[in-house]
Parts: sequence; structure tokens; C-alpha cells
Amino acid sequence: MQGFFEYFVIYGEKYLKISKKRGVYPLHCRTDMAFESHQRLTEGGKECSGITADSYIEEGMTVREVRVSTYDAARKIGKPQGRYLTLELFEHWQTDNDGILKAAALLSRHLRPLLPQKGTVLVAGLGNLRITPDSIGPLTVDRVIVTRHLTGNMPELFGSMRPVCAIKAGVLGTTGVETAELIRGVCSRVRPAAVIAVDALASLSTERLCRTFQLSDTGIVPGSGACNPRRALNAGTLGVPVIALGVPTVVDADTIIGEAIGQTPDYDSHGSFLVTPKDIDALAEKSAKVLGYAINLALQGDMSVADMEQFLC
Amino acid sequence: MQGFFEYFVIYGEKYLKISKKRGVYPLHCRTDMAFESHQRLTEGGKECSGITADSYIEEGMTVREVRVSTYDAARKIGKPQGRYLTLELFEHWQTDNDGILKAAALLSRHLRPLLPQKGTVLVAGLGNLRITPDSIGPLTVDRVIVTRHLTGNMPELFGSMRPVCAIKAGVLGTTGVETAELIRGVCSRVRPAAVIAVDALASLSTERLCRTFQLSDTGIVPGSGACNPRRALNAGTLGVPVIALGVPTVVDADTIIGEAIGQTPDYDSHGSFLVTPKDIDALAEKSAKVLGYAINLALQGDMSVADMEQFLC
Amino acid sequence: MQGFFEYFVIYGEKYLKISKKRGVYPLHCRTDMAFESHQRLTEGGKECSGITADSYIEEGMTVREVRVSTYDAARKIGKPQGRYLTLELFEHWQTDNDGILKAAALLSRHLRPLLPQKGTVLVAGLGNLRITPDSIGPLTVDRVIVTRHLTGNMPELFGSMRPVCAIKAGVLGTTGVETAELIRGVCSRVRPAAVIAVDALASLSTERLCRTFQLSDTGIVPGSGACNPRRALNAGTLGVPVIALGVPTVVDADTIIGEAIGQTPDYDSHGSFLVTPKDIDALAEKSAKVLGYAINLALQGDMSVADMEQFLC
Amino acid sequence: MQGFFEYFVIYGEKYLKISKKRGVYPLHCRTDMAFESHQRLTEGGKECSGITADSYIEEGMTVREVRVSTYDAARKIGKPQGRYLTLELFEHWQTDNDGILKAAALLSRHLRPLLPQKGTVLVAGLGNLRITPDSIGPLTVDRVIVTRHLTGNMPELFGSMRPVCAIKAGVLGTTGVETAELIRGVCSRVRPAAVIAVDALASLSTERLCRTFQLSDTGIVPGSGACNPRRALNAGTLGVPVIALGVPTVVDADTIIGEAIGQTPDYDSHGSFLVTPKDIDALAEKSAKVLGYAINLALQGDMSVADMEQFLC
Repeated sequence: MQGFFEYFVIYGEKYLKISKKRGVYPLHCRTDMAFESHQRLTEGGKECSGITADSYIEEGMTVREVRVSTYDAARKIGKPQGRYLTLELFEHWQTDNDGILKAAALLSRHLRPLLPQKGTVLVAGLGNLRITPDSIGPLTVDRVIVTRHLTGNMPELFGSMRPVCAIKAGVLGTTGVETAELIRGVCSRVRPAAVIAVDALASLSTERLCRTFQLSDTGIVPGSGACNPRRALNAGTLGVPVIALGVPTVVDADTIIGEAIGQTPDYDSHGSFLVTPKDIDALAEKSAKVLGYAINLALQGDMSVADMEQFLC
Repeated sequence: MQGFFEYFVIYGEKYLKISKKRGVYPLHCRTDMAFESHQRLTEGGKECSGITADSYIEEGMTVREVRVSTYDAARKIGKPQGRYLTLELFEHWQTDNDGILKAAALLSRHLRPLLPQKGTVLVAGLGNLRITPDSIGPLTVDRVIVTRHLTGNMPELFGSMRPVCAIKAGVLGTTGVETAELIRGVCSRVRPAAVIAVDALASLSTERLCRTFQLSDTGIVPGSGACNPRRALNAGTLGVPVIALGVPTVVDADTIIGEAIGQTPDYDSHGSFLVTPKDIDALAEKSAKVLGYAINLALQGDMSVADMEQFLC
Repeated sequence: MQGFFEYFVIYGEKYLKISKKRGVYPLHCRTDMAFESHQRLTEGGKECSGITADSYIEEGMTVREVRVSTYDAARKIGKPQGRYLTLELFEHWQTDNDGILKAAALLSRHLRPLLPQKGTVLVAGLGNLRITPDSIGPLTVDRVIVTRHLTGNMPELFGSMRPVCAIKAGVLGTTGVETAELIRGVCSRVRPAAVIAVDALASLSTERLCRTFQLSDTGIVPGSGACNPRRALNAGTLGVPVIALGVPTVVDADTIIGEAIGQTPDYDSHGSFLVTPKDIDALAEKSAKVLGYAINLALQGDMSVADMEQFLC
Repeated sequence: MQGFFEYFVIYGEKYLKISKKRGVYPLHCRTDMAFESHQRLTEGGKECSGITADSYIEEGMTVREVRVSTYDAARKIGKPQGRYLTLELFEHWQTDNDGILKAAALLSRHLRPLLPQKGTVLVAGLGNLRITPDSIGPLTVDRVIVTRHLTGNMPELFGSMRPVCAIKAGVLGTTGVETAELIRGVCSRVRPAAVIAVDALASLSTERLCRTFQLSDTGIVPGSGACNPRRALNAGTLGVPVIALGVPTVVDADTIIGEAIGQTPDYDSHGSFLVTPKDIDALAEKSAKVLGYAINLALQGDMSVADMEQFLC
């Protein structure tokens, strides 16, 4: 949700006017879900060369895969080239017994193959802890078992664990440092084997909020695939594979209205508002648990929740 | 926003089904602003006996007053009998030099006459700190100068200050205690001369969010004037005057869509979603500063921000 | 730790002078552990009628029990009449696999018989979240499964669960309301069958910090058994059984010095300082998990950590 | 307090044993105040070549200056070469009217000459927000007006402000990244003209806690001047001037005992405990306000607290 929110780290109305000059907020900035963009592109049976899409059911859960394989396709879909996986969790995962653990296990199974088999992993939690639907990244970091200082200093005890470090990247408005600058700086010192970038996403549908998790091997290019490469978090800028992990928590207000009236609304009307569930506090916490536990299971192997809770504090 | 959010302190979908049975979410639950309800009631020149409305300009700020004087009018407008003041702040109060202090001074001038001239005042911050747009109440409490323990224990030093105590009333979902029960319990021990109940509000218009503050002498009756008196916070249930103070931070998703399509949308579609500004974190903090400082100025007399910051920590 | 900290919710040095006039800070205010007070009273083989003490090993853990049975004994030991249980956890409970869950299971086994078999239970977290070693109470509340709103509104789904509500009682300095006033007020509305009061404790020994948990059926009388009954949290003031639950996190600076020099130091020197472990953040979180999980296990029966995490958010 | 706390970011007792092998915790690790180290070195009229010390009264406040000018002197005093200023605030600065603002103005006057006259400044808040006495760094960052994103994107509006960015550097235990690594990484991207490193300090005297502020042009070398240059934050490692800013909040438990018994106690006894004021929550907040406001005044010129509060949120 980097593009989504950073657009509005404002100071005074003059900035807003500047933002507006940049023109109408395009579709591919209103969803971070590749399969939604693909659905829109191919509505009415249109073809889109350079993109393949597939879906199947696994343990009662719908898995969708979109592969963007050419530069032109990436421009059209507004997402970088690579592979996008979407896992739609079973309907009541938030309240079922053991639902969080089951969900984390499913995610971890798809996350593990995207990661290198050894070496330090840096988990970067993107987004703003103070805006509930944008807090997925930092909340997830709180659930990640951090081991790099242990594996390094006490190899005799923790040498069998994977070295993991984790940072909350904050937001431009509170730090004055762009998220991408911060993470690039940390990578230049830590030299991880891979980065996992966790972020809240925007979706086109309220039904997917806090339910449909997305994994990709493309990294994150805030805003769109085309613009502002300086802010990209990907293999090109960080020098290592960047796995993006997220779950949608908001829908743009324009999108909701557009659906209702059957056309794109005037940008000026609601472009700076977001739509989010009323119980977003509980949903965000539970989604972040799924993401954090999934990362732990993918990196450290099978652990019970009790084992993980022992490490976290 | 009590009715607005507590509706959705859910545990699983079965509860939602129960909620839905209660029927379509009515207009007067979708706005907490009395003057908006009144405008809707009198659209097209309709009359509404038992309600008077007035407005004027004061120091460049629009002040609106609505008085609901009969039981029938209260039922129609969906708000309890009493007096509602709305202060629409100057457009760029959030970024102007000294804007917060100016705004607080304006509010305090209208707040002071609603309060008894002496005796302990209990400030109750309603709402959920973990949902950014619902955090106005607890954030305000953090800005209120609490003195009751000082005036009681050290009258020689602090005897000239007004005794003030303040609680964050939390939410049902995290405490299992209804806000009204908690505040009634505290009042039975503290026996204040008045209660100020601070809450985030819902509006029908995104333009009023974090800009149009409402004061009333009616207390708060979550849900509506008619239903569930057990949960009311007012002179009837607490035994002392209850001043309600708030600022809208959300619009119901249905309202936005209804505006766009020109009719009330089907409840099922978006009834559990809210619309809020993307920079709600900064807006909520600044709005809470205005409310907290206004309460301090109304109760303790003129102080500079530096003096207030000295007391707060 | 109520007496310990509230003593120092100060505003300016004059208050301190007033506090000091109250005289030397007595032993029984420097420890909240009944068995420590009893050890001191009976040093050198002194007898103390009205108090019995016992200890045994259970699953590798030392369990100590002190019973104070007369008014005179209570005055002497500076603790109210009743039964005090101390459980000294195995040395590395904080880092062992499943250590938190094992510790919680042990505690819950001793907690369950102190509670009534049915009826609502109110968990009151005492202390100040903003002072790490005083945050045990509020941190524990975050781990307690709150069900009262569910069992009441949805008996068909949650009727088999025990109704539980929970409040963070805050501190005098930030609310202006005494903890005891607040809890008495809530009890007058909620009418629970029992109250569990959770608090950080003071000990005489750094070795017991975050390791030796205390349970008692006496409630809490901040300051001492004799003084200020208005502030007591017990069956006398609340009308229902009050179970006190806590773990020491601090030692008074005077105590440490006293041990070193072999006599009680001058109060003026360090009376307003506390001694706490350098890694108190992790220790407090883990201790609060043990307490919260123990309460859940005692009230809701056997659950896995994964089940509990599903309810918490 | 980097050395002080990082020593104890432990995982299990085995690490402690490793730490202990490193030998007795030396004096210069127990105080971060250069003038205290100097006093100890020169007790009984001993001379210490390579170090000059001076003090004077300014507006009722004692200002002390220590200059360490040779490598040998730095080794002896256990602090890097450079200039250390200590400002002892008037006794009741925490409760006086406008006390925070007055204190900030005094500090800023001594801070300004240490900073370059133009260019971006990076404020790095060191320490752990979750341990109250170690939270000075991150709490200060919350009070620093961050402008780098504004001066860069909207020079027409904010061009007259100094570009400032700020990060909370966290702690090893929660991120797995050493503070120095993180800040070096950020500097490599941001390329500031200077860094201000803010940290809580350790003192030898409880009387100086939250009262005696230290500024230096030496940067911070956690642990001591001699050991582990990899972790240093100074011109050598960051390539730009590093101003260290801090206030003591803790005394080592050994120090307190040592004072009482007149000799250095056995390390094993209390080496992992700290002594801190009981009202450290309020003291830390107020101290951080002084530091944050002082930084703002030094970098942005004269502003009122109301102006600053307008920028902060």
C-alpha cells in the first residue's frame, strides 16, 4: 500500500493540489492484487499476451497464480514482471479453532519455495503502525522470530536456526526517509540472502479484505511498474531476491463508488479516502499473526504456536 | 460512534447474521451530527415541529445550533432532546501557525457555558484506541490535565485548579464491559458535578471529517434516542449533566454509495465498512489536541500550550 | 505494587516532602511477598503466633504456603489475613520449549480452587503500562480471553464458556481516579462472582524477580493491612472474593543497599528508586503471558496456546 | 546506554555466562557522563594529563566542560577524544511554568554551535521504547519536527526550513540488526551533513537522573573508547560529524551498592540490574520533550511550543 498511502503524507492543502495535478489515479494504483488487475484487463474475453493465469483448489482453499512475463505486459497490468500467488483462505479462518495456525501452515508451504535455502533473511515491515489498516507490516514484524544476533553470537546454541532480522520501515511522514532508502541502506550493511517485504494491500473488492493473501517474487514497486524506479524494492535495487507478502485491508473509496454507479468517478470527489472494515483492529492483528507465523514456519521449519510464543515477547 | 462500532464487535459470522436481522441500518445511526439529520428531515422545505435551527458566523467560523425540544421531534430526528452546537473550523486549521490553539480557544468559549461553574468534572474518552478513526476519545484523554488527585491531596498547592479526572472507557470487545456500565460505575464512586463524554462521530459528508466539531448538552445515547436506554450516558442514567463532545472521522460506506447513486443502497453490500481519510493518523492526533486543549481552557482558565505541555506527560 | 508506586505519583518536590513526613518506609511496604515477610519476622528462630508456613516440591517447583489467621498476626506481618501461595518456577522457564505453557498450567492448577465454580469473573489489571516493571497487570489483561459480551449476547454459541470481563485500572496519576474507586465502581454494575486482581510486586531478593509467582485469597490492601481501608480491594470493600495474583519485578533500592551494608539505610537516600532487571521488557511480557494463560486455563478449561491465540487479538 | 543494555539482550543463561567471562564490568561502562569519569580519575588530587575540565554558572544552571585531547587520556577515561558539555538544569524544571521550554532553549544554545550551519541532519533515537528508562531516544524522535520530505518535495513552501530526518534505531534483540549497522546503512543513502544521536545514559549518582543533560561532539562508542570500533557511531564510521545528546536515567545497581559499602561489589551480585526513579514514566517523557524541542530550536530557529505542536502529530 506504499503508493496508496504515501500519496497522502501531506502537509497542507498546497501539496494536495500538487498531487492532483499528477492526474487521475489509475486503476493499477487502486489494487495491489495482480489477479484483480488481470481480471479487469481481460474482461469481456479480451486477450492479454505476456500474462498467464491459473487457479486450483488446495485443501479447500482457492489458489490463483498470475505470471507476467514481458515488459509490455507489465506496463499494461501495472505490475512488475514475475509470479503472483493468491491464497484465498477458508471463510471463517479468523474464528475457527486453530484457524490462524492452519492458515499460516498453508501460506508457509507456498512461501518456502520462493526463498533461498540458506543465508540471512531480512523481513521488512512496510506501512504505518498508527493507521490500523496500514499496520499489517509492522504488526507482522512483531510476530517474526528474530535470530540473527543469536545465530551470530551463540552459534553453539542457535546455529541450527536460520538467521533472521526484521525492521519496521516506518513511513515517510514520520521519518523523512523513504522506505526504499531505509531498506537499501540496511541491506548494504546486513547483506541478506533475501528480503521479505510485508505490506498491507489495496483490493477492488471488500470481500477479499483480510482473507486473500498475496505472495510474489517481484518485490514491490510503489505506485506502478513504470514510474519512479528509485523507490522500487526489488532485485534490481537491493541486489537480492525480494519476496512480497501482503493482504488487502482497504478499498479505495472511488472504487466502491465506481462499482455502484458503473463508471469511474471524478477523482476530486473521494480520491483521498479509504474504505476499511469496522472491525479492522482484530482483523489486522489476526492477519499479521498468519503472516508472521507463516514466515517463521517457512524459515525455521515446523514449530508449534507455543514454541513460537516462547521466542516472541 | 458508539453504536457505529459496537455493532461490529463481532466474533464470527453468526453474530453478523443476528445483527442483520435487526433490520436496515437507519439514517440517524449513520450520522451523529444533529444538524445533518435536521437538514435531511427538512429537505425540500419540509417542516419539522419541535426543532429549531440557527447559524451564524463567528471569527470566520460557521456556528450552527439545533434545538430539539419535544419527545416526538427527538424520535423523528433520532437524537435526544437538547441543544447541539456545531463549529466548523477555518479551512486550514491543521496547518496554520497556532491553528490548534486558536481552534481550542474557540471551542472552549462554547464549552464553558455548558459546564457547571464548580465541582469535579469526569472526562470519559469513548472509543477504541486501536482503530485510528475511533481513537478520538482516548487520544483526547491523553491531552486532558488530570488534577483530582492533586487538588485532593495537596490543596495548598493545587487548590485553585478545577478537580478533573479522566478515563478511557475502552470498548466492549476488549473489556467485556459496556462503556455505559463502566462510566456509571465510576460516577457512583467519584460523584462528579458533570461528565464530558468525548467520542469520534460519523458524518454524512467527507468534507466535515476532522473539521466540524459538535458539542451538546444531551449526553450520548448510542444507537438512537429511542432504543436501549440501558446504554445511554445522560443525566437520566448518570444523575449529572453529560456534555457530549466530538468530531466526525468516518462516513458509512453506504452513505457514500447512496450519494453516488442517488438512493439508499442495499444494507448487505457495505454495511460493515467505513470510509476515512488516508491521513487519519495525523488528523486524529490534531483533532484530539484541539479537544483536549479546549477542555483544559474551559476548566482551568487561560493557559499557554507550553503551560499545558508542562502538566501533560 | 500499588503502595510502592502510588507513593510517587508526584507533582513537584513539595509532595515528596509531605510523603517523607510520613516516616520511614517500613519493611512490609518493601515486599509484597508474604513468605518473605514471614521469613524476616521469624529470623533467628523467633516465633510468630497466628501464622503458619509450609513448603513442598511439586513437579520440580517449590510451593510455599503462608496462612495468616489472626488480626494481630496480620498487623505484625503487614499483610491481611488469609492464605498466600508462592510458586517458584523452574530456573529456565523463560527459554525452555513450551516453558510458558508449562508454567501457566502449574499456576492454573493452584488458581482454580481459589475461584468460585461459576459466575462472571472480573480480571483487574493494576499498575502502569508506561513503567515497564509496573506493567504486569495491564499486559496480563491483554492475554485474558474476554467473553462476557459473547456469553451474554450469543449464549447458543458461547454459553459453555465462563463469562469473563477485564479492565486495565490505570494509575492515579493519569486518571485522577484511585484504582480501588474504579474497580468498586465497575463491580457495582457488573456484579461479578469474583475478582482476580493482577499486579506487579516488590520483593526483597533480585533472584525472585519474574520467577516466583504469588497467589492469595486476601485481595490487595495497598500500603499495609492496617492503614487506609478505603483503598483496599477485598471481600470487605467489593462484596465478593478477591484473588490476588502477581509476580515481583522490582526490589526497593533501600533493600539492596541494606543487604549490602547489613542494616536499614537512611530513607532519604534512595527511597524513591527501584531496582529492576535490565531485560525487564522481555521478562514482563513472558510473565504476563504466564499469568494470562493461567487465568484462561483456570476459567475456560484446557486449551492449547493456538486456541487461546485465536481468541486474543 | 548502548553498552549498558545491549550487554543484556540475552537469550538464556548461557549467554550470561559468556558475558561474565569478559570480566568485571568496568567503571567507564557504568557511567556515560564524561565529567563523572573525570572526577573519579582525579579523586584525591590525582592529575590526568590530556584532559581539561572547566565549569561555570549560566542563568542559574551549572555548565561543565571536559575536553579529552589525547589517545592515552581517552583510554584512561574510557571515553573518545573530544568535547563534553554537561548542563545541570535548575532544580524544579519539571514542574515550573514553562520549565520545559526554558530548559530546551538553554540546551539549544549549546547544541547549535556543534552543528554544521546547513545541510540535512539525521536524528537517530537509540534505545528501547519498551524499557521506560531506555526510551529517551525514541521518545525524543517523536518530538523532532521531520521536514526532509517537505523541503525536498515542496521547496516553495518549506524551503526555508532545515531538512531533518529521524529514525528510531530499535535494539538488537527486537530487530537482529545492530544499531550502528542500521544507522550506517541509512547514512549511506541519506548522506546527511551531521547526525545527532540521542540516547539514555547511565550515571554514577541518582541526583543527576533526568536533570543533567550531556552534549558531545564525539559520537557514541558503545562499551568504551577502546573496544569494538565496528559498533562506533562517529565521524570515523559514519563519515560526518556525530553529536551525542543524552540524559541519564539509570544508575547501575553495583554503583549504588559500591557507594554504600565503600568499595566495588562483586560483579556477580547485581550486575544485571539497574536503578531508576519510580516516576520514570513522567520524567522520561519530560526529558524527551526537552531534547526534542532543543533539537527543533537549534535547527529551525525560534519557535513557540504551539508552533512546534502544530508540526508534530
